[in-house]
Amino acid sequence: MIHPIKNKTLEKALQQKINLKTKPLGALGMLEDLALKIGCIQNSETPKIDNPTIVVFAGDHGIATKEEVNPFPQEVTSQMVYNFVNGGAAINVFSKTNDVALKIVDAGVNHKFPKSLNIINKKVAFGTKNYQDEPAMTLEQYNDAIKKAGDIISKIHSKGCNTIGFGEMGISNTSSASLLMGHFIKTPIIDCIGSGTGLYADGINKKAQILSKVFNKYNPKTPQEALATFGGFEIVMLCGAILKAAELKMTVVIDGFIVTAALLAAEAINTNVLDYCVFAHNSNEQGHIKMLEFLNVKPLLSLGLRLGEGTGAALAIPLLRASVNFLNDMASFESAGVSGEND
Amino acid sequence: MIHPIKNKTLEKALQQKINLKTKPLGALGMLEDLALKIGCIQNSETPKIDNPTIVVFAGDHGIATKEEVNPFPQEVTSQMVYNFVNGGAAINVFSKTNDVALKIVDAGVNHKFPKSLNIINKKVAFGTKNYQDEPAMTLEQYNDAIKKAGDIISKIHSKGCNTIGFGEMGISNTSSASLLMGHFIKTPIIDCIGSGTGLYADGINKKAQILSKVFNKYNPKTPQEALATFGGFEIVMLCGAILKAAELKMTVVIDGFIVTAALLAAEAINTNVLDYCVFAHNSNEQGHIKMLEFLNVKPLLSLGLRLGEGTGAALAIPLLRASVNFLNDMASFESAGVSGEND
Repeated sequence: MIHPIKNKTLEKALQQKINLKTKPLGALGMLEDLALKIGCIQNSETPKIDNPTIVVFAGDHGIATKEEVNPFPQEVTSQMVYNFVNGGAAINVFSKTNDVALKIVDAGVNHKFPKSLNIINKKVAFGTKNYQDEPAMTLEQYNDAIKKAGDIISKIHSKGCNTIGFGEMGISNTSSASLLMGHFIKTPIIDCIGSGTGLYADGINKKAQILSKVFNKYNPKTPQEALATFGGFEIVMLCGAILKAAELKMTVVIDGFIVTAALLAAEAINTNVLDYCVFAHNSNEQGHIKMLEFLNVKPLLSLGLRLGEGTGAALAIPLLRASVNFLNDMASFESAGVSGEND
Repeated sequence: MIHPIKNKTLEKALQQKINLKTKPLGALGMLEDLALKIGCIQNSETPKIDNPTIVVFAGDHGIATKEEVNPFPQEVTSQMVYNFVNGGAAINVFSKTNDVALKIVDAGVNHKFPKSLNIINKKVAFGTKNYQDEPAMTLEQYNDAIKKAGDIISKIHSKGCNTIGFGEMGISNTSSASLLMGHFIKTPIIDCIGSGTGLYADGINKKAQILSKVFNKYNPKTPQEALATFGGFEIVMLCGAILKAAELKMTVVIDGFIVTAALLAAEAINTNVLDYCVFAHNSNEQGHIKMLEFLNVKPLLSLGLRLGEGTGAALAIPLLRASVNFLNDMASFESAGVSGEND
């Protein structure tokens, strides 16, 4: 059960508190909206960012073994998992820089990791099926992925985390995200396709042809079926994680194109989930801007990132901290003895 | 002497280092440009953000005692200085949140502060003259302000700071900034005027009338004369501080409308100064976007702030840290054993 956030009294009290701070009305722009939103999520006039955590879900995609929808080979997914564990990826650096905890989840990588490896092992299978031939996963696998993701979030929440961001790693997962975008936004597939990790015009056209064919092959009747059809395991887990985090009244920091595709599915399952989401950045993957417009939301950052891994979410955490800190720690005109505006 | 930055060999080495990191080419967007720029400023392939500091210059303006170009009364300048000292202002909160040092300078506030107050006392005078009647300051005062600002920066630099942001506090200083913008960009004064701390349409029109008259009254022949004419002491100190920081090869984090007005003057004095500047945000004060366009630069953040105090600069510091940290700490494809792009 995800509670919708409707507390006009609290909202008014928060707005009043913001307006009395020693600054012109509205002068902190989006940080004021952010403070208000986090206050409402936490049902508190003194919200806090506790133990912020990024969870990166990794999974492989059947299509990557057959079609070049991505300039990198499939083994890069597992190689990057090792890179995460060794602290060498962008998300490692940004999490450390901004004092954010980082967890890596094997959602379904096509590689057998050693048991001793410092990751959360929730492997559903060794990669999804190729949706050119059959659905990416069975409904059983879908349900398994959703449940496993929920368990991860419940555990992280139980240890005192109230702010969670998500990332992903999965070669070819922009293809799944494009298909999901096409499904949930009802936009022609060609408008859902970008360069992914670095395709050029030829590659994008080929990707569009392949994905249009896949898109037309299926007619999923429910959000669940759409996710199971187009995959992947990491995207289903993202969806399950977002739903569970909202249920637990955590602030959910939405990253880029793939995570927002998972959110589109989560929102189709339960629209209340949006009440718990803040949007870290708009990615340089062209479909992402359209997703954000569809959701009618404005992201905090616009840095031209297109990396995934939760990098945008990690970079946005200092802005979340700044917003609750000004709400809690700035003086009011009265407490500071500062004159207000002339009448 | 401000050295222009022209080191093609280093630039190429930095770009190569960035390209070999475990990420698609260009996937970190503006953070890649930022890392490259800071590397060039520090003449290093391993740049660092050491002891980042925000210096807030406060000063009063003669016009504020006569005309309502600002909805707040002049005494708010001194009241806010006390608020800074007591840790209650937005810049206090953001500096603390992001682990940035903060210094407050009395550049020329119309108030006698107790000697024991924890500020840097560099008062040039008790506020500027009203430029409706006479230039804001004498050339002697201008020179005094530039020298004092340089001394402050030299001292901060000598203690190991290599990254400096600037802020300001001065009721009515958007008026000075608008006049300077009109002078340096050669834009009609009406396009240089925004709501400041919160004027509405009527107030903006009145402000435009007053400032157009002032603008047409003078014809400054040099950047120095323009600064002395339109003031204020805090803006002249900002200009002197920017010039000194560039001379010392520090990374200069440019904040909003007022600081950028000071930069326009600094750039007119020595165009090399731009090689050392990064741009924190674009403010909600309408003239600021035009200033950034004139300088042909892209800011890191766009949060709708219009507060001054260096708040945008303080919020941008984590992005500077993230950029140098990825350059220093991310693995390369080779070191991480990650496959590169397919041919």
